[in-house]
Amino acid sequence: MVLSPPYLLFIGDATDPLSIKMAKSVADWNPAACVGECKLPGCTVSTGCSPMSIQEGAKAGANTFVLGFANSGGIIDTAWIPTIIEAIEAGMHVVSGLHDKLTDIPEVVAAAKKHGKTLTDIRHPTTRFNTGKGLKRSGKRLLTVGTDCSVGKMYTSLSLANAMNKAGKKATFRATGQSGILVAGEGVAIDCVVADFISGAVETLSPHNDDDHWDIIEGQGSLSHPAFAGVSLGLLHGSQPDALVICHALNRSHMRGLPHYPQPTLEDVIAMTTKAASLTNPHVKVVGIAVNTSSVSEDDARQYCAKTSADLGLPCTDPLRFGVDSIVEQL
Amino acid sequence: MVLSPPYLLFIGDATDPLSIKMAKSVADWNPAACVGECKLPGCTVSTGCSPMSIQEGAKAGANTFVLGFANSGGIIDTAWIPTIIEAIEAGMHVVSGLHDKLTDIPEVVAAAKKHGKTLTDIRHPTTRFNTGKGLKRSGKRLLTVGTDCSVGKMYTSLSLANAMNKAGKKATFRATGQSGILVAGEGVAIDCVVADFISGAVETLSPHNDDDHWDIIEGQGSLSHPAFAGVSLGLLHGSQPDALVICHALNRSHMRGLPHYPQPTLEDVIAMTTKAASLTNPHVKVVGIAVNTSSVSEDDARQYCAKTSADLGLPCTDPLRFGVDSIVEQL
Repeated sequence: MVLSPPYLLFIGDATDPLSIKMAKSVADWNPAACVGECKLPGCTVSTGCSPMSIQEGAKAGANTFVLGFANSGGIIDTAWIPTIIEAIEAGMHVVSGLHDKLTDIPEVVAAAKKHGKTLTDIRHPTTRFNTGKGLKRSGKRLLTVGTDCSVGKMYTSLSLANAMNKAGKKATFRATGQSGILVAGEGVAIDCVVADFISGAVETLSPHNDDDHWDIIEGQGSLSHPAFAGVSLGLLHGSQPDALVICHALNRSHMRGLPHYPQPTLEDVIAMTTKAASLTNPHVKVVGIAVNTSSVSEDDARQYCAKTSADLGLPCTDPLRFGVDSIVEQL
Repeated sequence: MVLSPPYLLFIGDATDPLSIKMAKSVADWNPAACVGECKLPGCTVSTGCSPMSIQEGAKAGANTFVLGFANSGGIIDTAWIPTIIEAIEAGMHVVSGLHDKLTDIPEVVAAAKKHGKTLTDIRHPTTRFNTGKGLKRSGKRLLTVGTDCSVGKMYTSLSLANAMNKAGKKATFRATGQSGILVAGEGVAIDCVVADFISGAVETLSPHNDDDHWDIIEGQGSLSHPAFAGVSLGLLHGSQPDALVICHALNRSHMRGLPHYPQPTLEDVIAMTTKAASLTNPHVKVVGIAVNTSSVSEDDARQYCAKTSADLGLPCTDPLRFGVDSIVEQL
């Protein structure tokens, strides 16, 4: 799945900052790919990009109109359809990360056909993958794995890739989720692939490379999550990681969406993930812990990271507060 | 996915007995659901059912015309299309377990529409599942798990369900693959479900039940297989098994399709599967080992099973040669 930046980010009449996660991710991590944001009346949130109309976006060079939403039902609001069609008529492709499909809306399909524009439903991959082979590929790979879902695996992966590039190392962020794909401009929404092809799709996403090149692969789900452990294990074996970074959110009381499941300990996750990963790469090593400490003060966060680092004998940091140089030094 | 027996089994011009696995499985395990088999000139194999024409099959009461093939490319041969249409015109639904879709063949779709018949592509589930919840359900569950793919998990599961029913216990076979679905008349092709919904689909397949009822859930893949471990883990957590039966094929030199991956030991598989399964059911127990011993003599098979049983402290049997009563006694 390959997209065509730059993007005009459509955030409709959103009032909840969490509902525009797709748009916000790309505005934060790849601002050069965003010409601006486009709102409807009533919108009270912002990505930080300049507000502009469709016509202004087209003039500013936008190639693709991005539905910037990640609402829970995954619904395309019918109120957005005239705006989507206006964007197509102004010369833009359209991208959506919602469950509802652009390609199921006849008037949008007709407009795209008429103007020769593509409709990309990131959550519905159309590529036919092979099953995994488990063969060793050249180059190095790092995978971020979570103690739970939504603990900051994408942010950690992007931080690592950026820090490595800044340090003059060869590194590429490999996107496995809708927001990551938008940031990178390409990738595979791995939780949307047919089950038989999870590992095979990741092998395609992270092919042979230079011996000193690192793929920084965005993790999904968690081996400790009853709903998504299968996705996480398939992603692990497709990645064949040399290095693992464990991502964790401080002070979460239970697994996301499942009040009856406690969080695992970091020690458990390290042991379980290393054991599982050794099937496809016996030399796998955990190289650091990345913690989302937003629930505590910066002082408390610093203390928690220092204690965890001492307990586990591994660098431990909050990527947003303290950067990831301590982890990059391990590679 | 619910089918409408009885079936007329179509085996085309097949000459390789392995290529008609779908048809052979249902003929072996649910002969009452099969009115006969339908061949084209050149066919040299048989399911053991009576050969008959489409018209004879229709007269004998066939409700569904089954493409009995499991060829490696998953291809629907265009030479079969006139016969498929003839079956529809004779009043039958059509079922296929191939990768190619019946619903992609315009003339077949047109015939089905005209005659009000359904086309079911087992490998392309159309149900929208929920993500897994990991909540405990009433009733008991047994899952067959493999040291590798294609080691006899379906045959073992069906043997167990039959033996339990014969012994007066409440047990239901739950199909998770194309051949099993045909035998049971319902089920979910779990390796064809979108990755996010593997566990959720299995939760739907095996709902709440009587406290003394056992679901015997057909396993898929293997936690030790680099390509399919994700599917196996999702299936494990969706099943929340109380009991596991480890299925193994004797004298296999490497993982199926992957000459560079050795087979795991039974001890490894027991340890790894029990540990993983304990996330969703801390009381899980391995209750037996089912071995496909077809590569050795019956004497050698008996010796192997006796030694394995003594080594592991678990019943060990070849379901086809020696039955599964020793395992059923453990439940």
